[in-house]
Amino acid sequence: MPQAGPAKGMDQAPKALFFDVFGTLVDWRISIAREAELILKPLGHALDWPAFADAWRGEYQPAMEEVRSGKLPFCKLDVLHRRNLERILPRFGVSSLSDDTMRQLNLAWHRLDAWPDVPPGMGQLKRMFWLAPVSNGNISLMVDLARRNSLPWDAVLGSEIAGDFKPKPRVYLSACDAFGLAPGDCMMVAAHSNDLAHAAKCGLRTGHIARPNEHGPGKGEPAPTVPVDVAASSLEDLARKLGA
Amino acid sequence: MPQAGPAKGMDQAPKALFFDVFGTLVDWRISIAREAELILKPLGHALDWPAFADAWRGEYQPAMEEVRSGKLPFCKLDVLHRRNLERILPRFGVSSLSDDTMRQLNLAWHRLDAWPDVPPGMGQLKRMFWLAPVSNGNISLMVDLARRNSLPWDAVLGSEIAGDFKPKPRVYLSACDAFGLAPGDCMMVAAHSNDLAHAAKCGLRTGHIARPNEHGPGKGEPAPTVPVDVAASSLEDLARKLGA
Repeated sequence: MPQAGPAKGMDQAPKALFFDVFGTLVDWRISIAREAELILKPLGHALDWPAFADAWRGEYQPAMEEVRSGKLPFCKLDVLHRRNLERILPRFGVSSLSDDTMRQLNLAWHRLDAWPDVPPGMGQLKRMFWLAPVSNGNISLMVDLARRNSLPWDAVLGSEIAGDFKPKPRVYLSACDAFGLAPGDCMMVAAHSNDLAHAAKCGLRTGHIARPNEHGPGKGEPAPTVPVDVAASSLEDLARKLGA
Repeated sequence: MPQAGPAKGMDQAPKALFFDVFGTLVDWRISIAREAELILKPLGHALDWPAFADAWRGEYQPAMEEVRSGKLPFCKLDVLHRRNLERILPRFGVSSLSDDTMRQLNLAWHRLDAWPDVPPGMGQLKRMFWLAPVSNGNISLMVDLARRNSLPWDAVLGSEIAGDFKPKPRVYLSACDAFGLAPGDCMMVAAHSNDLAHAAKCGLRTGHIARPNEHGPGKGEPAPTVPVDVAASSLEDLARKLGA
Protein backbone atom coordinates (compact mmCIF):
# COMPACT_ATOMS: atom_id res chain seq x y z
CA MET A 1 0.00 0.00 0.00
CA PRO A 2 1.44 3.43 -0.88
CA GLN A 3 2.37 5.66 2.07
CA ALA A 4 -0.03 8.37 0.90
CA GLY A 5 -2.89 6.00 0.17
CA PRO A 6 -6.17 5.60 2.00
CA ALA A 7 -6.21 4.64 5.68
CA LYS A 8 -5.61 1.04 6.61
CA GLY A 9 -8.72 -1.05 6.15
CA MET A 10 -10.22 1.09 3.40
CA ASP A 11 -9.99 -0.39 -0.09
CA GLN A 12 -10.28 2.98 -1.70
CA ALA A 13 -10.35 6.57 -0.47
CA PRO A 14 -13.75 8.23 -0.21
CA LYS A 15 -14.61 10.94 -2.77
CA ALA A 16 -16.45 13.30 -0.46
CA LEU A 17 -16.13 14.26 3.18
CA PHE A 18 -19.20 15.45 5.10
CA PHE A 19 -18.61 17.40 8.30
CA ASP A 20 -20.49 17.82 11.48
CA VAL A 21 -19.89 21.44 12.47
CA PHE A 22 -20.86 22.34 16.07
CA GLY A 23 -18.17 20.85 18.27
CA THR A 24 -16.34 19.09 15.45
CA LEU A 25 -15.17 22.17 13.53
CA VAL A 26 -16.09 25.07 15.79
CA ASP A 27 -15.77 25.60 19.54
CA TRP A 28 -19.36 26.64 20.23
CA ARG A 29 -18.90 26.75 24.02
CA ILE A 30 -16.11 29.34 24.26
CA SER A 31 -17.58 31.32 21.37
CA ILE A 32 -21.13 31.51 22.74
CA ALA A 33 -19.83 32.40 26.21
CA ARG A 34 -17.77 35.23 24.67
CA GLU A 35 -20.59 36.54 22.44
CA ALA A 36 -23.13 36.47 25.28
CA GLU A 37 -20.75 38.40 27.51
CA LEU A 38 -20.04 40.93 24.75
CA ILE A 39 -23.75 41.63 24.34
CA LEU A 40 -25.15 41.24 27.85
CA LYS A 41 -22.37 42.59 30.10
CA PRO A 42 -22.70 46.19 28.82
CA LEU A 43 -26.43 45.90 29.67
CA GLY A 44 -25.49 45.20 33.28
CA HIS A 45 -25.85 41.42 33.32
CA ALA A 46 -23.27 39.26 35.09
CA LEU A 47 -23.81 35.59 34.25
CA ASP A 48 -21.75 32.44 34.48
CA TRP A 49 -21.06 32.71 30.75
CA PRO A 50 -19.87 29.12 30.06
CA ALA A 51 -22.86 27.83 32.07
CA PHE A 52 -25.12 30.00 29.89
CA ALA A 53 -23.56 28.46 26.76
CA ASP A 54 -24.05 24.97 28.18
CA ALA A 55 -27.68 25.69 29.05
CA TRP A 56 -28.43 27.03 25.56
CA ARG A 57 -26.76 24.05 23.93
CA GLY A 58 -28.60 21.78 26.37
CA GLU A 59 -31.91 22.68 24.73
CA TYR A 60 -30.58 21.73 21.29
CA GLN A 61 -31.39 18.02 21.10
CA PRO A 62 -34.84 18.25 22.80
CA ALA A 63 -35.88 21.04 20.39
CA MET A 64 -34.83 19.04 17.31
CA GLU A 65 -36.52 15.95 18.68
CA GLU A 66 -39.87 17.70 18.37
CA VAL A 67 -39.20 18.03 14.64
CA ARG A 68 -37.67 14.58 14.18
CA SER A 69 -40.67 12.98 15.88
CA GLY A 70 -43.08 14.84 13.60
CA LYS A 71 -44.59 16.90 16.43
CA LEU A 72 -43.42 20.14 14.76
CA PRO A 73 -42.79 20.84 11.07
CA PHE A 74 -39.19 21.38 9.99
CA CYS A 75 -37.77 24.84 10.56
CA LYS A 76 -34.32 26.39 10.39
CA LEU A 77 -32.05 25.92 13.38
CA ASP A 78 -32.01 29.73 13.79
CA VAL A 79 -35.69 29.46 14.76
CA LEU A 80 -35.05 26.69 17.31
CA HIS A 81 -32.08 28.60 18.75
CA ARG A 82 -34.36 31.61 19.29
CA ARG A 83 -37.01 29.54 21.04
CA ASN A 84 -34.37 27.88 23.20
CA LEU A 85 -32.89 31.27 24.09
CA GLU A 86 -36.28 32.53 25.27
CA ARG A 87 -36.60 29.38 27.34
CA ILE A 88 -33.27 29.66 29.19
CA LEU A 89 -32.91 33.42 29.79
CA PRO A 90 -35.29 33.44 32.80
CA ARG A 91 -33.18 30.72 34.44
CA PHE A 92 -30.31 33.22 34.46
CA GLY A 93 -32.50 36.04 35.71
CA VAL A 94 -32.44 37.89 32.40
CA SER A 95 -35.63 39.40 31.01
CA SER A 96 -36.92 42.32 28.95
CA LEU A 97 -34.17 42.30 26.33
CA SER A 98 -35.05 44.40 23.28
CA ASP A 99 -35.94 42.60 20.09
CA ASP A 100 -32.75 43.84 18.48
CA THR A 101 -30.64 42.49 21.38
CA MET A 102 -32.44 39.14 21.17
CA ARG A 103 -31.75 38.99 17.45
CA GLN A 104 -28.07 39.88 17.92
CA LEU A 105 -27.72 37.34 20.70
CA ASN A 106 -29.39 34.61 18.65
CA LEU A 107 -26.98 35.29 15.79
CA ALA A 108 -24.08 34.47 18.16
CA TRP A 109 -24.29 30.99 16.60
CA HIS A 110 -23.23 32.60 13.31
CA ARG A 111 -20.04 33.94 14.96
CA LEU A 112 -18.39 30.77 16.27
CA ASP A 113 -14.64 30.25 15.94
CA ALA A 114 -13.04 27.15 14.48
CA TRP A 115 -10.66 24.95 16.44
CA PRO A 116 -7.09 25.94 15.42
CA ASP A 117 -6.42 22.79 13.34
CA VAL A 118 -9.48 23.32 11.14
CA PRO A 119 -8.46 25.97 8.57
CA PRO A 120 -5.10 24.34 7.71
CA GLY A 121 -6.54 20.82 7.76
CA MET A 122 -9.46 21.82 5.56
CA GLY A 123 -7.09 23.38 3.05
CA GLN A 124 -5.22 20.08 2.75
CA LEU A 125 -8.42 18.02 2.44
CA LYS A 126 -9.85 20.35 -0.25
CA ARG A 127 -7.20 19.24 -2.74
CA MET A 128 -8.33 15.62 -2.60
CA PHE A 129 -12.00 15.52 -1.60
CA TRP A 130 -15.32 17.24 -2.20
CA LEU A 131 -16.20 18.95 1.07
CA ALA A 132 -19.58 19.85 2.54
CA PRO A 133 -21.03 20.50 5.96
CA VAL A 134 -23.74 17.99 6.87
CA SER A 135 -24.86 19.85 9.94
CA ASN A 136 -28.15 20.57 11.63
CA GLY A 137 -27.40 24.27 11.16
CA ASN A 138 -29.20 26.19 8.41
CA ILE A 139 -27.55 27.33 5.21
CA SER A 140 -27.05 31.01 6.12
CA LEU A 141 -25.52 29.99 9.46
CA MET A 142 -23.12 27.67 7.61
CA VAL A 143 -22.18 30.49 5.20
CA ASP A 144 -21.41 32.89 8.05
CA LEU A 145 -19.21 30.28 9.77
CA ALA A 146 -17.46 29.45 6.49
CA ARG A 147 -16.66 33.09 5.75
CA ARG A 148 -15.45 33.67 9.31
CA ASN A 149 -13.24 30.56 9.43
CA SER A 150 -12.18 30.05 5.79
CA LEU A 151 -14.05 26.78 5.32
CA PRO A 152 -13.78 26.01 1.58
CA TRP A 153 -17.08 24.18 1.07
CA ASP A 154 -17.99 22.83 -2.35
CA ALA A 155 -21.66 23.02 -1.38
CA VAL A 156 -23.70 23.43 1.79
CA LEU A 157 -25.68 20.25 2.45
CA GLY A 158 -27.36 19.00 5.62
CA SER A 159 -30.61 19.61 7.46
CA GLU A 160 -32.04 22.47 5.40
CA ILE A 161 -31.61 20.50 2.16
CA ALA A 162 -33.08 17.38 3.76
CA GLY A 163 -35.93 19.06 5.64
CA ASP A 164 -35.11 17.10 8.79
CA PHE A 165 -32.41 16.87 11.45
CA LYS A 166 -29.60 14.39 12.05
CA PRO A 167 -29.46 11.60 12.92
CA LYS A 168 -32.46 10.92 10.64
CA PRO A 169 -31.21 8.82 7.68
CA ARG A 170 -32.52 11.20 5.05
CA VAL A 171 -30.06 13.91 6.14
CA TYR A 172 -27.05 11.68 5.37
CA LEU A 173 -28.60 10.14 2.27
CA SER A 174 -29.76 13.43 0.72
CA ALA A 175 -26.18 14.70 1.01
CA CYS A 176 -24.82 11.65 -0.87
CA ASP A 177 -27.53 12.10 -3.50
CA ALA A 178 -26.75 15.80 -3.95
CA PHE A 179 -23.16 14.91 -4.80
CA GLY A 180 -24.29 12.06 -7.03
CA LEU A 181 -22.32 9.57 -4.93
CA ALA A 182 -23.06 6.22 -3.34
CA PRO A 183 -22.98 6.34 0.49
CA GLY A 184 -19.84 4.17 0.44
CA ASP A 185 -18.01 6.91 -1.45
CA CYS A 186 -18.78 9.44 1.29
CA MET A 187 -17.29 9.79 4.77
CA MET A 188 -19.07 11.46 7.67
CA VAL A 189 -16.58 13.26 9.91
CA ALA A 190 -17.64 14.13 13.46
CA ALA A 191 -16.51 14.40 17.06
CA HIS A 192 -19.66 12.54 18.16
CA SER A 193 -19.93 8.74 18.07
CA ASN A 194 -23.73 8.89 17.87
CA ASP A 195 -23.62 10.90 14.62
CA LEU A 196 -21.10 8.45 13.16
CA ALA A 197 -23.06 5.36 14.21
CA HIS A 198 -26.13 6.65 12.35
CA ALA A 199 -24.11 7.62 9.28
CA ALA A 200 -22.55 4.13 9.22
CA LYS A 201 -26.03 2.56 9.33
CA CYS A 202 -26.78 4.50 6.12
CA GLY A 203 -23.67 3.03 4.48
CA LEU A 204 -21.33 5.99 4.82
CA ARG A 205 -17.77 5.64 6.01
CA THR A 206 -16.87 7.37 9.22
CA GLY A 207 -14.06 9.52 10.59
CA HIS A 208 -13.85 10.54 14.24
CA ILE A 209 -12.11 13.73 15.38
CA ALA A 210 -11.14 13.90 19.05
CA ARG A 211 -12.55 16.98 20.78
CA PRO A 212 -11.92 16.06 24.42
CA ASN A 213 -12.83 19.54 25.72
CA GLU A 214 -15.95 20.30 23.67
CA HIS A 215 -18.24 20.72 26.69
CA GLY A 216 -15.52 22.10 28.94
CA PRO A 217 -12.20 20.69 30.22
CA GLY A 218 -12.28 16.90 29.96
CA LYS A 219 -15.89 16.89 28.80
CA GLY A 220 -15.85 15.63 25.26
CA GLU A 221 -14.99 12.55 23.23
CA PRO A 222 -11.23 11.82 23.29
CA ALA A 223 -11.90 8.72 21.14
CA PRO A 224 -14.84 7.08 19.36
CA THR A 225 -17.08 4.73 21.35
CA VAL A 226 -18.23 2.97 18.17
CA PRO A 227 -16.26 1.31 15.34
CA VAL A 228 -15.08 3.90 12.78
CA ASP A 229 -12.96 3.79 9.62
CA VAL A 230 -10.55 6.46 10.83
CA ALA A 231 -9.97 8.00 14.26
CA ALA A 232 -7.95 11.23 14.22
CA SER A 233 -6.73 13.73 16.77
CA SER A 234 -7.34 16.73 14.48
CA LEU A 235 -8.31 17.65 10.93
CA GLU A 236 -4.63 17.74 10.01
CA ASP A 237 -4.24 14.22 11.41
CA LEU A 238 -7.30 13.14 9.38
CA ALA A 239 -5.73 14.63 6.24
CA ARG A 240 -2.54 12.66 6.90
CA LYS A 241 -4.43 9.44 7.53
CA LEU A 242 -6.47 9.85 4.34
CA GLY A 243 -3.31 10.53 2.33
CA ALA A 244 -4.22 14.15 1.52
CA MET B 1 -23.08 59.30 -3.82
CA PRO B 2 -19.61 57.79 -3.27
CA GLN B 3 -17.73 56.70 -6.40
CA ALA B 4 -17.53 53.12 -5.17
CA GLY B 5 -21.16 52.95 -4.05
CA PRO B 6 -24.00 50.96 -5.54
CA ALA B 7 -25.00 51.49 -9.17
CA LYS B 8 -27.09 54.55 -10.01
CA GLY B 9 -30.75 54.01 -9.18
CA MET B 10 -30.12 51.53 -6.37
CA ASP B 11 -30.60 52.93 -2.88
CA GLN B 12 -28.40 50.28 -1.37
CA ALA B 13 -26.20 47.50 -2.69
CA PRO B 14 -27.64 43.98 -2.68
CA LYS B 15 -26.22 41.52 -0.15
CA ALA B 16 -26.20 38.42 -2.36
CA LEU B 17 -25.68 37.80 -6.06
CA PHE B 18 -27.34 34.80 -7.71
CA PHE B 19 -25.90 33.62 -11.00
CA ASP B 20 -27.30 31.94 -14.02
CA VAL B 21 -24.54 29.61 -15.19
CA PHE B 22 -25.00 28.16 -18.72
CA GLY B 23 -24.22 30.99 -21.12
CA THR B 24 -23.77 33.62 -18.41
CA LEU B 25 -20.66 32.19 -16.73
CA VAL B 26 -19.61 29.34 -19.01
CA ASP B 27 -19.39 29.00 -22.78
CA TRP B 28 -21.40 25.81 -23.18
CA ARG B 29 -21.35 25.89 -27.00
CA ILE B 30 -17.59 25.83 -27.58
CA SER B 31 -17.08 23.47 -24.63
CA ILE B 32 -19.70 20.90 -25.66
CA ALA B 33 -18.48 20.97 -29.28
CA ARG B 34 -14.91 20.31 -28.04
CA GLU B 35 -15.91 17.54 -25.61
CA ALA B 36 -18.09 15.79 -28.19
CA GLU B 37 -15.26 15.87 -30.71
CA LEU B 38 -12.78 14.56 -28.11
CA ILE B 39 -15.02 11.57 -27.37
CA LEU B 40 -16.65 10.78 -30.73
CA LYS B 41 -13.91 11.57 -33.27
CA PRO B 42 -11.62 8.71 -32.09
CA LEU B 43 -14.65 6.42 -32.58
CA GLY B 44 -14.78 7.42 -36.25
CA HIS B 45 -17.56 10.00 -36.11
CA ALA B 46 -17.27 13.26 -38.02
CA LEU B 47 -20.03 15.66 -37.02
CA ASP B 48 -20.65 19.37 -37.33
CA TRP B 49 -19.60 19.76 -33.66
CA PRO B 50 -21.05 23.24 -32.97
CA ALA B 51 -24.31 22.15 -34.64
CA PHE B 52 -24.33 19.11 -32.34
CA ALA B 53 -23.90 21.40 -29.32
CA ASP B 54 -26.75 23.61 -30.56
CA ALA B 55 -29.04 20.62 -31.10
CA TRP B 56 -28.35 19.25 -27.62
CA ARG B 57 -28.95 22.64 -26.04
CA GLY B 58 -32.05 23.01 -28.22
CA GLU B 59 -33.76 20.20 -26.30
CA TYR B 60 -33.06 21.93 -22.96
CA GLN B 61 -36.12 24.15 -22.54
CA PRO B 62 -38.67 21.62 -23.92
CA ALA B 63 -37.36 18.96 -21.53
CA MET B 64 -37.62 21.24 -18.50
CA GLU B 65 -41.06 22.37 -19.60
CA GLU B 66 -42.34 18.84 -19.02
CA VAL B 67 -41.27 19.18 -15.39
CA ARG B 68 -42.39 22.78 -14.96
CA SER B 69 -45.83 21.90 -16.32
CA GLY B 70 -46.17 19.00 -13.89
CA LYS B 71 -46.18 16.35 -16.63
CA LEU B 72 -43.00 14.78 -15.19
CA PRO B 73 -41.71 14.82 -11.60
CA PHE B 74 -38.59 16.86 -10.89
CA CYS B 75 -35.28 15.22 -11.73
CA LYS B 76 -31.68 16.38 -11.93
CA LEU B 77 -30.61 18.14 -15.11
CA ASP B 78 -28.07 15.32 -15.66
CA VAL B 79 -31.04 13.02 -16.26
CA LEU B 80 -32.67 15.40 -18.76
CA HIS B 81 -29.35 15.91 -20.55
CA ARG B 82 -29.05 12.14 -20.98
CA ARG B 83 -32.58 11.84 -22.39
CA ASN B 84 -31.93 14.76 -24.74
CA LEU B 85 -28.66 13.18 -25.87
CA GLU B 86 -30.44 9.95 -26.77
CA ARG B 87 -32.97 12.01 -28.70
CA ILE B 88 -30.49 13.94 -30.86
CA LEU B 89 -27.78 11.36 -31.63
CA PRO B 90 -29.83 9.64 -34.40
CA ARG B 91 -30.23 13.02 -36.15
CA PHE B 92 -26.44 13.07 -36.52
CA GLY B 93 -26.29 9.46 -37.66
CA VAL B 94 -24.70 8.25 -34.42
CA SER B 95 -25.90 5.05 -32.80
CA SER B 96 -24.72 2.10 -30.72
CA LEU B 97 -22.45 4.02 -28.38
CA SER B 98 -21.41 2.02 -25.33
CA ASP B 99 -22.96 2.87 -22.01
CA ASP B 100 -19.62 4.14 -20.77
CA THR B 101 -19.25 6.43 -23.80
CA MET B 102 -22.80 7.74 -23.30
CA ARG B 103 -22.03 8.46 -19.66
CA GLN B 104 -18.76 10.24 -20.50
CA LEU B 105 -20.48 12.26 -23.22
CA ASN B 106 -23.32 13.24 -20.91
CA LEU B 107 -20.83 14.46 -18.33
CA ALA B 108 -19.46 16.90 -20.93
CA TRP B 109 -21.80 19.41 -19.24
CA HIS B 110 -19.61 19.05 -16.12
CA ARG B 111 -16.53 20.13 -18.12
CA LEU B 112 -17.56 23.54 -19.46
CA ASP B 113 -15.10 26.44 -19.47
CA ALA B 114 -15.86 29.87 -18.04
CA TRP B 115 -15.75 33.02 -20.14
CA PRO B 116 -12.36 34.71 -19.50
CA ASP B 117 -13.77 37.57 -17.39
CA VAL B 118 -15.47 35.21 -14.94
CA PRO B 119 -12.70 34.02 -12.56
CA PRO B 120 -11.22 37.51 -11.96
CA GLY B 121 -14.66 39.16 -11.76
CA MET B 122 -15.92 36.56 -9.32
CA GLY B 123 -12.88 37.06 -7.10
CA GLN B 124 -13.70 40.78 -6.87
CA LEU B 125 -17.40 40.19 -6.17
CA LYS B 126 -16.64 37.61 -3.44
CA ARG B 127 -15.18 40.29 -1.19
CA MET B 128 -18.47 42.22 -1.08
CA PHE B 129 -21.33 39.79 -1.73
CA TRP B 130 -22.58 36.33 -0.87
CA LEU B 131 -22.40 34.35 -4.12
CA ALA B 132 -24.43 31.36 -5.29
CA PRO B 133 -25.39 29.79 -8.58
CA VAL B 134 -29.14 29.81 -9.13
CA SER B 135 -29.03 27.57 -12.15
CA ASN B 136 -31.14 24.77 -13.54
CA GLY B 137 -28.06 22.54 -13.29
CA ASN B 138 -27.85 20.03 -10.46
CA ILE B 139 -25.57 20.38 -7.45
CA SER B 140 -22.83 17.95 -8.55
CA LEU B 141 -22.71 19.61 -11.97
CA MET B 142 -22.29 23.00 -10.28
CA VAL B 143 -19.49 21.63 -8.07
CA ASP B 144 -17.59 20.25 -11.07
CA LEU B 145 -17.88 23.59 -12.89
CA ALA B 146 -16.83 25.50 -9.77
CA ARG B 147 -13.74 23.35 -9.24
CA ARG B 148 -12.80 23.61 -12.92
CA ASN B 149 -13.25 27.37 -13.13
CA SER B 150 -12.46 28.60 -9.59
CA LEU B 151 -15.99 29.80 -8.82
CA PRO B 152 -15.94 30.69 -5.11
CA TRP B 153 -19.56 29.87 -4.21
CA ASP B 154 -20.79 30.39 -0.68
CA ALA B 155 -23.48 27.76 -1.31
CA VAL B 156 -25.00 25.98 -4.29
CA LEU B 157 -28.65 27.00 -4.63
CA GLY B 158 -31.03 26.70 -7.60
CA SER B 159 -33.20 24.00 -9.13
CA GLU B 160 -32.14 21.00 -7.05
CA ILE B 161 -32.84 22.88 -3.79
CA ALA B 162 -36.15 24.14 -5.14
CA GLY B 163 -37.32 20.92 -6.80
CA ASP B 164 -38.33 22.81 -9.94
CA PHE B 165 -36.74 24.69 -12.83
CA LYS B 166 -36.37 28.38 -13.60
CA PRO B 167 -38.21 30.52 -14.38
CA LYS B 168 -40.66 29.11 -11.81
CA PRO B 169 -40.87 31.62 -8.91
CA ARG B 170 -39.99 29.08 -6.25
CA VAL B 171 -36.48 28.66 -7.67
CA TYR B 172 -35.66 32.35 -7.10
CA LEU B 173 -37.56 32.58 -3.82
CA SER B 174 -36.06 29.41 -2.28
CA ALA B 175 -32.60 30.85 -2.95
CA CYS B 176 -33.44 34.08 -1.09
CA ASP B 177 -34.91 32.06 1.76
CA ALA B 178 -31.82 29.83 2.00
CA PHE B 179 -29.68 32.93 2.53
CA GLY B 180 -32.22 34.37 4.97
CA LEU B 181 -32.60 37.46 2.78
CA ALA B 182 -35.55 39.39 1.39
CA PRO B 183 -35.77 39.22 -2.43
CA GLY B 184 -34.90 42.92 -2.61
CA ASP B 185 -31.53 42.18 -0.99
CA CYS B 186 -30.66 39.69 -3.74
CA MET B 187 -29.67 40.29 -7.35
CA MET B 188 -30.13 37.75 -10.13
CA VAL B 189 -27.31 38.00 -12.68
CA ALA B 190 -27.85 36.51 -16.13
CA ALA B 191 -27.18 36.94 -19.84
CA HIS B 192 -30.83 36.18 -20.54
CA SER B 193 -33.57 38.82 -20.30
CA ASN B 194 -36.25 36.19 -19.75
CA ASP B 195 -34.52 34.88 -16.61
CA LEU B 196 -34.16 38.44 -15.29
CA ALA B 197 -37.78 39.37 -16.05
CA HIS B 198 -39.01 36.44 -13.96
CA ALA B 199 -36.58 37.19 -11.12
CA ALA B 200 -37.75 40.83 -11.08
CA LYS B 201 -41.38 39.67 -10.81
CA CYS B 202 -40.33 37.85 -7.61
CA GLY B 203 -38.87 41.07 -6.23
CA LEU B 204 -35.19 40.41 -6.88
CA ARG B 205 -32.90 43.01 -8.39
CA THR B 206 -31.39 42.20 -11.75
CA GLY B 207 -28.01 42.43 -13.44
CA HIS B 208 -27.52 41.68 -17.15
CA ILE B 209 -24.21 40.43 -18.55
CA ALA B 210 -23.74 40.82 -22.31
CA ARG B 211 -22.87 37.51 -24.01
CA PRO B 212 -23.37 38.50 -27.67
CA ASN B 213 -21.85 35.26 -28.99
CA GLU B 214 -23.43 32.68 -26.68
CA HIS B 215 -25.14 30.73 -29.48
CA GLY B 216 -22.39 31.45 -32.04
CA PRO B 217 -21.02 34.66 -33.57
CA GLY B 218 -23.60 37.45 -33.18
CA LYS B 219 -26.14 35.05 -31.66
CA GLY B 220 -26.64 36.15 -28.09
CA GLU B 221 -27.88 39.10 -26.04
CA PRO B 222 -25.59 42.15 -26.44
CA ALA B 223 -27.94 44.08 -24.13
CA PRO B 224 -31.04 43.39 -22.02
CA THR B 225 -34.43 43.58 -23.69
CA VAL B 226 -36.18 44.25 -20.36
CA PRO B 227 -35.55 46.88 -17.67
CA VAL B 228 -32.72 45.85 -15.32
CA ASP B 229 -30.93 47.45 -12.39
CA VAL B 230 -27.48 47.05 -13.92
CA ALA B 231 -26.35 46.16 -17.45
CA ALA B 232 -22.70 45.12 -17.71
CA SER B 233 -20.37 43.98 -20.45
CA SER B 234 -18.60 41.43 -18.24
CA LEU B 235 -18.37 40.24 -14.64
CA GLU B 236 -15.50 42.64 -14.08
CA ASP B 237 -17.70 45.47 -15.37
CA LEU B 238 -20.48 44.32 -13.03
CA ALA B 239 -18.03 44.38 -10.10
CA ARG B 240 -17.06 47.94 -10.99
CA LYS B 241 -20.66 49.05 -11.32
CA LEU B 242 -21.59 47.48 -7.96
CA GLY B 243 -18.62 49.17 -6.30
CA ALA B 244 -16.81 45.92 -5.55
